[in-house]
Amino acid sequence: MHADLLIIPQWLLPVDTQSRELRDHAVAVADGRILAVLLAPEARRSIIAAWVLELPGHVLIPGLVNAHTHAAMTLMRGLADDLPLMTWLHDYIWPTKTRWVDPSFVGNGSRLAVLEMLRGGVTCFNDMYFYPEVTAQVAADAGMRAVIGMIMVDLPTGYADGADAYITKGLALHAHYRGHPLIRIGFAPHSPYAVSDGPLERVRTLADELEVPVHIHLHETRDEVVTSLRDHGARPLTRLEVLGLVGPGLVAAHMTQLEDAEIDHLAATGAHVVHCPESNLKLVSGFCPVAWLLAAGVNVALGTDGAASNNDLDLLAEMRTAALLAKGVAGSAAALPAAAALRMATLNGARALGLERETGSIEPCKAADLVALDLRDANTQPRTTTSPIAVSMRTTVCTGKR
Amino acid sequence: MHADLLIIPQWLLPVDTQSRELRDHAVAVADGRILAVLLAPEARRSIIAAWVLELPGHVLIPGLVNAHTHAAMTLMRGLADDLPLMTWLHDYIWPTKTRWVDPSFVGNGSRLAVLEMLRGGVTCFNDMYFYPEVTAQVAADAGMRAVIGMIMVDLPTGYADGADAYITKGLALHAHYRGHPLIRIGFAPHSPYAVSDGPLERVRTLADELEVPVHIHLHETRDEVVTSLRDHGARPLTRLEVLGLVGPGLVAAHMTQLEDAEIDHLAATGAHVVHCPESNLKLVSGFCPVAWLLAAGVNVALGTDGAASNNDLDLLAEMRTAALLAKGVAGSAAALPAAAALRMATLNGARALGLERETGSIEPCKAADLVALDLRDANTQPRTTTSPIAVSMRTTVCTGKR
Repeated sequence: MHADLLIIPQWLLPVDTQSRELRDHAVAVADGRILAVLLAPEARRSIIAAWVLELPGHVLIPGLVNAHTHAAMTLMRGLADDLPLMTWLHDYIWPTKTRWVDPSFVGNGSRLAVLEMLRGGVTCFNDMYFYPEVTAQVAADAGMRAVIGMIMVDLPTGYADGADAYITKGLALHAHYRGHPLIRIGFAPHSPYAVSDGPLERVRTLADELEVPVHIHLHETRDEVVTSLRDHGARPLTRLEVLGLVGPGLVAAHMTQLEDAEIDHLAATGAHVVHCPESNLKLVSGFCPVAWLLAAGVNVALGTDGAASNNDLDLLAEMRTAALLAKGVAGSAAALPAAAALRMATLNGARALGLERETGSIEPCKAADLVALDLRDANTQPRTTTSPIAVSMRTTVCTGKR
Repeated sequence: MHADLLIIPQWLLPVDTQSRELRDHAVAVADGRILAVLLAPEARRSIIAAWVLELPGHVLIPGLVNAHTHAAMTLMRGLADDLPLMTWLHDYIWPTKTRWVDPSFVGNGSRLAVLEMLRGGVTCFNDMYFYPEVTAQVAADAGMRAVIGMIMVDLPTGYADGADAYITKGLALHAHYRGHPLIRIGFAPHSPYAVSDGPLERVRTLADELEVPVHIHLHETRDEVVTSLRDHGARPLTRLEVLGLVGPGLVAAHMTQLEDAEIDHLAATGAHVVHCPESNLKLVSGFCPVAWLLAAGVNVALGTDGAASNNDLDLLAEMRTAALLAKGVAGSAAALPAAAALRMATLNGARALGLERETGSIEPCKAADLVALDLRDANTQPRTTTSPIAVSMRTTVCTGKR
């Protein structure tokens, strides 16, 4: 078998159904896709590769999926730390947006975000911000996979002067990237409190038609829920349900305020949740009931949110925060084990974005979105595992079209 | 003025009384001590230094103080993650200790810990583990500052066969390091539940006599408090109070279970708390009320705990977790601002260990325990500050003996 690249790491975490931890396995890559996963000795015998990459001391994992970002906001990193949410928003973030955000700002901020994310093992991100065409271009130029949101708020901004303009610009962007190998365009109405029923209904119709996800901030804070009950007589999730938006296309970021029935309902409808633990802590939004969501069968992905509310785009660190915080919140040290945290940051993210056939795990025919982590540093010594290491995985090869 | 070293960083956080953020300042070092802190142009004019270290893009901070460690437990890193506390302890940590812990284990584990901590900006640690003479030697050999605990538990171990033996060995260690420039020996009775009244009374008497701190796990879990009420008719802090141990010499690690009156009492007595947020999350010990402790005026330091319960010794990351978690727990985004987190990880740690005249801040006559952080990476761009930058700090010089 011929391949462009044969990677032979010391360990391999494919994030497959069984969450196996493999050693002595290799990954063959051809035309940017995973051609085969097989035992290293067999790979050395049977694969003729243009480049053999031996990675002793490394673990190979799927590229990480940052499922909720505002890439351009890297330029607001650390702008107003340690301040109450409303001061942060009204006195710093919004005035900065009004004063500074234009295509040049979005381009510079997105380039910085893409640099930081690629260096941190993120190969795909799900973005929501103004001038999305600029962020899409930055990601495409960098060879990075992204779902870019057709942003929408009721208020006019420098980017668009009303609901119609947001949709028109968004649809033009969608048309431009149709069939692009890396960039997909989805809807990104900001939140139930920033977008009224009319535009949300149009989003529902268009999203169904175009078969794209709807990325939205949802149940981020208690105040959001209280305000919705006052203004709409319903909790935000219920309001979206009535508008027909709750289903497998919904990518709901934050979700810190959830009743048991809502968790069950999310599971039943196939809607996706993006957990953003560091943002939720920094802005005191509340604690997402991750352990309960996972137990109910909800697909939970992981996101950093924008750098202004984090203050970085480090999804590996976010996995760690998620794993530790879930234990404290659930009152169980067994909550969100390491394998589940890795799954949230990879395959669950891909599923949320409708990209699970393309990325999120190391399986034949998927794109070769791969990350090698060097475990030879002092802080990853010694290496211990409580899971059995599989050494007899059957060779799997990509034989057909994806 | 002659100096061995003149450091000219772009920014300087001395962790002084006003938590100033300085730019264009320099630090002169002679004989391992801080000779002067002064404006960079003046330093370039007036200091004749054997070595001038220009650090553009760097911030200079005091060396970090890791105020609660079990250094040798790096060898148990990741040994049993994601397991309930009692399974973790009974099925993994204790059997491993019994089977493996000897001077060689402690030597290897401590060397790894010292490597990891020095690389992570920690220049001083407060340790509690068996064979403390081995850890003390490792720290001394590495040129690292440490307070090493005279460990004590009721049960016999490979290290000592009972209360008398622990104390005898501890005192020999104390005598050996008397006057050592880097190593101090304090008491480290493991916890109120692992040490009975008799030995604790002897610790009190000896600690007063030798003027050394008493480092102990305290109010780590709810179960500890419940058990103490059952067995001693008092909460652990009350029991230590009766035994005369609650005062400026007490270094109490964890403290997740505290009533308001206890917080006030800690403040009144001058006892120190070491907050270990990542360990508390991983082992579901509870949430230390950091914001309330600081508001009451309690000196709160920061610790990683051992690597088995963390899983690293990264105090910079622990500062971040502490700052984020305190906000969530206090329900206020203003809780534990960045400057307070840095102070916990530096000067407060030094104060807890009775080393505040020696380390913990960048001030003339203190030891030159200094850390330069490179802020030129993608994830620290752009650099923003909401605090005014002081540019007119008066030159301060070490004129006398410390």
